[in-house]
Amino acid sequence: MTNEQLVKQLIRLLNEKNAIPSDSIKNAIPVGISNRHIHLSQQDLESLFGEGYGLTPIKELKQPGQYAAKETVLIAGPKGTFEKVRVLGPVRPVSQIEISKSDSFTLGIKPPVRESGDLTNAATLTVIGPFGSVIMEKKVIIAKRHIHMTPIEAEQLNVIDRQLVSIRVEGERGGTLDEVVIRVSDQFRLECHLDMDEANALGISNNQMITIMPKK
Amino acid sequence: MTNEQLVKQLIRLLNEKNAIPSDSIKNAIPVGISNRHIHLSQQDLESLFGEGYGLTPIKELKQPGQYAAKETVLIAGPKGTFEKVRVLGPVRPVSQIEISKSDSFTLGIKPPVRESGDLTNAATLTVIGPFGSVIMEKKVIIAKRHIHMTPIEAEQLNVIDRQLVSIRVEGERGGTLDEVVIRVSDQFRLECHLDMDEANALGISNNQMITIMPKK
Repeated sequence: MTNEQLVKQLIRLLNEKNAIPSDSIKNAIPVGISNRHIHLSQQDLESLFGEGYGLTPIKELKQPGQYAAKETVLIAGPKGTFEKVRVLGPVRPVSQIEISKSDSFTLGIKPPVRESGDLTNAATLTVIGPFGSVIMEKKVIIAKRHIHMTPIEAEQLNVIDRQLVSIRVEGERGGTLDEVVIRVSDQFRLECHLDMDEANALGISNNQMITIMPKK
Repeated sequence: MTNEQLVKQLIRLLNEKNAIPSDSIKNAIPVGISNRHIHLSQQDLESLFGEGYGLTPIKELKQPGQYAAKETVLIAGPKGTFEKVRVLGPVRPVSQIEISKSDSFTLGIKPPVRESGDLTNAATLTVIGPFGSVIMEKKVIIAKRHIHMTPIEAEQLNVIDRQLVSIRVEGERGGTLDEVVIRVSDQFRLECHLDMDEANALGISNNQMITIMPKK
């Protein structure tokens, strides 16, 4: 190999190392910003809103079948409360409250950062509705940042379900967020879910595009 | 040059390109997390607290001469208010309110991201004290993230005053924040100032260490 060939090969290898995931044109993922919200079980829904109660959808969310309901609740911790916390539907087997770390200081609780559905060591809040209140023990988490996508999109982006990736955000408060978990299902739409702390710290607006960083 | 020599030289150049700033042992910068706060001019202090009023220091801040005062005020925007907003001393020539982007939504205003002292297109809030209230026109900003350091530290870290750098944060919510402005003065102590949104999004605690990223 001549020096020239060697340099060319090294450059090629370096470019590969720094390559963005395959099919770069598709590496533009819209952000959905989640404010604090609550998912309710049918039992908790009835305790808060009355026997036989059903949620009233008012806005479809991007993930198929998910919606914001007309209903809101008050959530209360040892140090503070938030009024008008949105209920998201449909009802689930287990209730779950998702708040930001900033919210956790206002409320006076210390929820862990968790993927939706994982309530290991979750925190506790009291939830108050127009009909009654429920102490939601170990139901409060800070949602771990994540990206929903279909299996086809995962293949195009060269990632797999449960993988942790870093995402790149451009702009006046640009940066990179690590520990973003990939969630793959043919029931999902491509969307990166961040909370208010994350969106505000990085200056991100709803539907702004982010990219998955190349693997190191 | 032989192939071997060439490869060695390329590796050396690559290592230099990825080198952390000189004297890596010193590249550990403590974070100070700023909650919403207000700096007051003597005139505004007297309008809020009474004629001839002086601030009562209760806690020294890390930056020499700066302190948290006993005094707090209420700040009010078109959509909401915050009580007990801390006054920082000493008094300044011009009043300035620093809030997070999350706070700005609660208050219903749109302040720009600015360095302290730059009130270009700043937002407006009403400030209420025990003696009176002041409409603080164009005095509200979201503080641009920044690192205070002495000239000696700047030399050790291989950065200059006003330079924009990226900082690296490790942990469960790790990542990289760009657009961090370096501020050099022999009156400063080494400290990276972040707001609550930034600290919470990246899971940063007060006095946690961050590092300045190598230049690309």
